[in-house]
Amino acid sequence: MASLARHQLQQCISPFALRSYLAELISSFLFVFAAVGSTISARMLTPEVASNSSSLVATAMAQAFALFAAVYIAVDVSGGHVNPAVTFALAVGGHITVPVGVFYLASQLIGSILACLLLHLASAGQAIPTPKIATEMTGFGAAILEGSMTFALVYTIYVAADPRAAAEAKGGSKGHRSAVGLMAVGLVAGSCVLAGGSLTGASMNPARSFGPAIVSGDFKNHAVYWVGPLIGAGLAGLVHQNLIYPSSTLNSIDVV
Amino acid sequence: MASLARHQLQQCISPFALRSYLAELISSFLFVFAAVGSTISARMLTPEVASNSSSLVATAMAQAFALFAAVYIAVDVSGGHVNPAVTFALAVGGHITVPVGVFYLASQLIGSILACLLLHLASAGQAIPTPKIATEMTGFGAAILEGSMTFALVYTIYVAADPRAAAEAKGGSKGHRSAVGLMAVGLVAGSCVLAGGSLTGASMNPARSFGPAIVSGDFKNHAVYWVGPLIGAGLAGLVHQNLIYPSSTLNSIDVV
Amino acid sequence: MASLARHQLQQCISPFALRSYLAELISSFLFVFAAVGSTISARMLTPEVASNSSSLVATAMAQAFALFAAVYIAVDVSGGHVNPAVTFALAVGGHITVPVGVFYLASQLIGSILACLLLHLASAGQAIPTPKIATEMTGFGAAILEGSMTFALVYTIYVAADPRAAAEAKGGSKGHRSAVGLMAVGLVAGSCVLAGGSLTGASMNPARSFGPAIVSGDFKNHAVYWVGPLIGAGLAGLVHQNLIYPSSTLNSIDVV
Amino acid sequence: MASLARHQLQQCISPFALRSYLAELISSFLFVFAAVGSTISARMLTPEVASNSSSLVATAMAQAFALFAAVYIAVDVSGGHVNPAVTFALAVGGHITVPVGVFYLASQLIGSILACLLLHLASAGQAIPTPKIATEMTGFGAAILEGSMTFALVYTIYVAADPRAAAEAKGGSKGHRSAVGLMAVGLVAGSCVLAGGSLTGASMNPARSFGPAIVSGDFKNHAVYWVGPLIGAGLAGLVHQNLIYPSSTLNSIDVV
Repeated sequence: MASLARHQLQQCISPFALRSYLAELISSFLFVFAAVGSTISARMLTPEVASNSSSLVATAMAQAFALFAAVYIAVDVSGGHVNPAVTFALAVGGHITVPVGVFYLASQLIGSILACLLLHLASAGQAIPTPKIATEMTGFGAAILEGSMTFALVYTIYVAADPRAAAEAKGGSKGHRSAVGLMAVGLVAGSCVLAGGSLTGASMNPARSFGPAIVSGDFKNHAVYWVGPLIGAGLAGLVHQNLIYPSSTLNSIDVV
Repeated sequence: MASLARHQLQQCISPFALRSYLAELISSFLFVFAAVGSTISARMLTPEVASNSSSLVATAMAQAFALFAAVYIAVDVSGGHVNPAVTFALAVGGHITVPVGVFYLASQLIGSILACLLLHLASAGQAIPTPKIATEMTGFGAAILEGSMTFALVYTIYVAADPRAAAEAKGGSKGHRSAVGLMAVGLVAGSCVLAGGSLTGASMNPARSFGPAIVSGDFKNHAVYWVGPLIGAGLAGLVHQNLIYPSSTLNSIDVV
Repeated sequence: MASLARHQLQQCISPFALRSYLAELISSFLFVFAAVGSTISARMLTPEVASNSSSLVATAMAQAFALFAAVYIAVDVSGGHVNPAVTFALAVGGHITVPVGVFYLASQLIGSILACLLLHLASAGQAIPTPKIATEMTGFGAAILEGSMTFALVYTIYVAADPRAAAEAKGGSKGHRSAVGLMAVGLVAGSCVLAGGSLTGASMNPARSFGPAIVSGDFKNHAVYWVGPLIGAGLAGLVHQNLIYPSSTLNSIDVV
Repeated sequence: MASLARHQLQQCISPFALRSYLAELISSFLFVFAAVGSTISARMLTPEVASNSSSLVATAMAQAFALFAAVYIAVDVSGGHVNPAVTFALAVGGHITVPVGVFYLASQLIGSILACLLLHLASAGQAIPTPKIATEMTGFGAAILEGSMTFALVYTIYVAADPRAAAEAKGGSKGHRSAVGLMAVGLVAGSCVLAGGSLTGASMNPARSFGPAIVSGDFKNHAVYWVGPLIGAGLAGLVHQNLIYPSSTLNSIDVV
C-alpha cells in the first residue's frame, strides 16, 4: 500500500507528468483568456449596460475557436482536458489516478487565474466578468442547464477519444476521426455558449468560472458552476461507457 | 411473411438498435437545444419585438456547429440522421427498414421535445420560439423554400456518406472525405439558416419544428415544416442515387 | 480536324459530362442561394436603408460555408468549379476543353438564375440585391479589387488541387491535404467578402453576379464583375503554374 | 568562412528560395488585405465614431479564415510563416538561416504594404486603420498582451509543425494532424482578435501593423507591435522546444 502510494507520488512528479501540468496550464490560460477577454472586448464596444446579441456571437466564437486550439495543443502531452469536469469524469472512470487528477485541477485553476490577472492588470483595471445567471432563474435550474450543456461537451470528448469508435469506423481512419473530433469539441462548446449564454453564461467548466471569481471577488452562485458541470460530465462518461459502448472489454480509453 | 415480420421486430429491439435510438435522441436533443436556445439567448439580449441580423448570425452559427457535432457523435452508432427527413429519404431508398425508421423518428421527436421542455422549465418560463413564415409569404412558397434547403442538406449528406464517391476520390482517402463531409453537413445547414432564416425560419428538419410546436402549443403552418423537408429530402436521394451516380451496381449506401 | 471536333462534341454530351453539368448547376444554385438569400434575410431584420456590419458577417459566413459545401458536393463529379472564373482559368491553362467549359459556364449561370428566381418568387417578391460598388469608387478600382480577391480565391483552388503540392507534402497525405483545401477555398472566400463587401460586394464570381442582374434587371457596372474576376483567375493560374511550381514536367493538374 | 557566406548567399537566391519569398509575399498580402479590409468594410457600415461588437466579429472572422488560408497556400513552399515574429522565432532556434530570414521579413513587409496601398487607392482614399491601444492602457501593458497572444499563436504553430508530436500521435496520422493544425493556427488567431481586439488591436504580427503604419503615416506606439510579438514568439519556441519536448535529439523541426 505504501509502495503503491509512493509509486503514485512518483508518477505525479515524473518529467512526463510535469510537462502535462504545464500543458494544461497553458491551454487553460488560452481558453480562459479568450472567454473572458472576448467578453471584455465586446463590452468596451457596446457600452450600454446590457450587452447585445453580437457580443454573444463574439464570445461564443472566441470560446469555440480557443477551446479547439487549447485541446489541440495539449492533446498529445496531457490529453487536453482543459476543464476540471473532464478530469473529474476521467478520474471517476478510472482513466486517470486521483493524485494526477488533483495536479491537473490545480494547473487548470492556476492557468485560469493567471489569464484573468493578466487581463485585469494589462487593461488598466477592466472589471473581470463572471458567468451570470439570468435574474428570473433559480440556481437549481441553472445547475441543470450547466449540467446538460457539460453533458453534451464531455460526451463529444468521449466520442472523439474513444478508440473503439474509431476501430469501428469505416476504413479504419482513426487518426482522422480523432482530429475532426477536436473540431467537434470546440464547436459544440461554441453552440452551447450561443444557446445558454444569456441563461447561465454557459461556463461548462469550473476553471473558466473560478479564475474570474477569484480576480473579481464575485462568488455569487459560484457553486452552480461546479455542481452542474461535474454531474453532467460524470453522467456523460457513464452513458457513453455503459450504454453506447457497453459490450467492450477494454478497461481504459485513450482520452483526447 | 410472419417470420420476416418477427425478424424485423427483433431487429428493432436488438441492443444495437436500442443504442441507435439513444444516440439519435441525444443528438436531436443537442441540435434542438442549440437551435432553440440560441434564439432565446439572442432574443434576451435584443429585447425589441423583431430580432436583428446578429441574432440571425447567432442562431445560424449555433445550428451549424451543433449539427456538425450532433452528427459526429452519433454517426458510428446510428448513422447520425438527427432529422426525420433524412430517415424518410433513407427508408424510401430502402437503406433502412420502415419499423426501424419509425423508432428513429420517435427518438428524434422525443429528443426535440425534451430539449424544449428543459429550456422552458429551467429558464423560468421563457417562451419557446417556433420557426415562422414571413408575413407576406404563402405556405406554398414556404414549403418550396424549405424543400429546396432540405434538398441541399440531404444531398450533402448523401455525398458525405456515399462510398462510391470516396472510392473514386483521388488517393482513396475515404475516411478523410467522410469526416470533412460531416463539416460540410453542419456548415451547409448554417448557410441555409442565414439564407432562409427570415423567410421560413429555415428549419429543414421536422423534429426541429415539432418540439417547439408541442411545448409552445403553436402549430401555425406546422404542416409546411413536414411537407417541404420530406419532399426535398426524397428528391435529393433520387437525384443523387439515379442521376449523379447512375451506373453503380451497389444496392446500398453506407449512410453517414 | 473534323474527327477531333466530333470527338470533342461527343465528349460534351457523354453521360459523364452531363452529370458534371448537373453537379455544377446544383452547386451554383446552392452557393448563389446562400449568397443572395443571406443578404435578403439580413436586410429584412435591419430595415434601415444601409445594412450594418452584422449583415456583412451574415453574408460572409453564408458564402464561406456554402462555397465549401458547394465545392465539396461537386468535386468528385465535375471538379467543383462553381465559378466561371475558375472554369476560364482552367480552359486557358488547357486543363478543360473549351466546349466543355462553355457547358460548365451555362450550367453555372442557369443555377444562379434559378436560385434568384426561387428567392424572388417564393418570398412574395423580395427584391434581389446585386453586388454594388461603393459610391465614391471607380469601376476601374472595383475591377482591380475584384481581380485581386479572385486571385486569392483561385490561387487557393490551384494549391488545393495540385497533386504536385501534395506529392511534396510531408508524409504523402494527399487526400487529406485536398480535403482541408476545400475548407480553405470556402474560408478564403468568406474572408474576402468581409474585406471587400462594402467596397465592391466581393462577388469574385461572374455567375454570382449574373443571376441577380438577370432577375433584378440591374446591370449597372456588371462588366466589372466579369472583367476583374476573369483576369484575376487567369493570373492566379499563371503565377501558380509558372512561378511557384515551374520545374514540373506535368502537363495537367487534377483540379479540385 | 567566406565560403560559408557565399554558400548562404547562394541559398538566399536559389530558385527554391525565390519562390518561397513570393509565397510569403502573396500570403502576407492576403492576410493583411483581409485584416485591414474587414476593418474598413465594417466601418463603412457603422459610421459612428466607435465601432461595435459586430465589427469585432467581422475582423476576427476575416483574420481567422484568411490566416488559415494564407498559411495553407504557402506551407509547402515557404513553410507558411506569414509573420515576422514566426520567422524570428525560427531564426533564433536555428531552423532558418538569418539571411533567408531577412528576405522572408522583407517579403512579408512588402506584401503588407501592397495590400494597404491597394485598399487605399482602389477604395478612392479610405483611411487605412492601424491597430490601436485602448486609451487608458500603457504601452507596457499592451506589449505584454501582444506578447501573450503571440505566444499562443506561435506555440500553436510549433505544435502543428513538430514532427515529434505527430510521431507520438496515436496511429501515426501525421499528415492529418498537421492539416488540422493549420485550422488551429487560423482559429487561435481569430480567438485572440476577439479577446484583445478592443485592448491592443490584437495584431500579433509586426507585418500586419507595419503596412498600415507606412500607408497611413501613423506610427503611434508602433514599437509595441514589434517588441511584444517578437518576445512572445521567442518564448513560445523556447517553452515548446525545451520544456514540452525536452528529451528529443532532433535538432531541426519541420516548421509549418
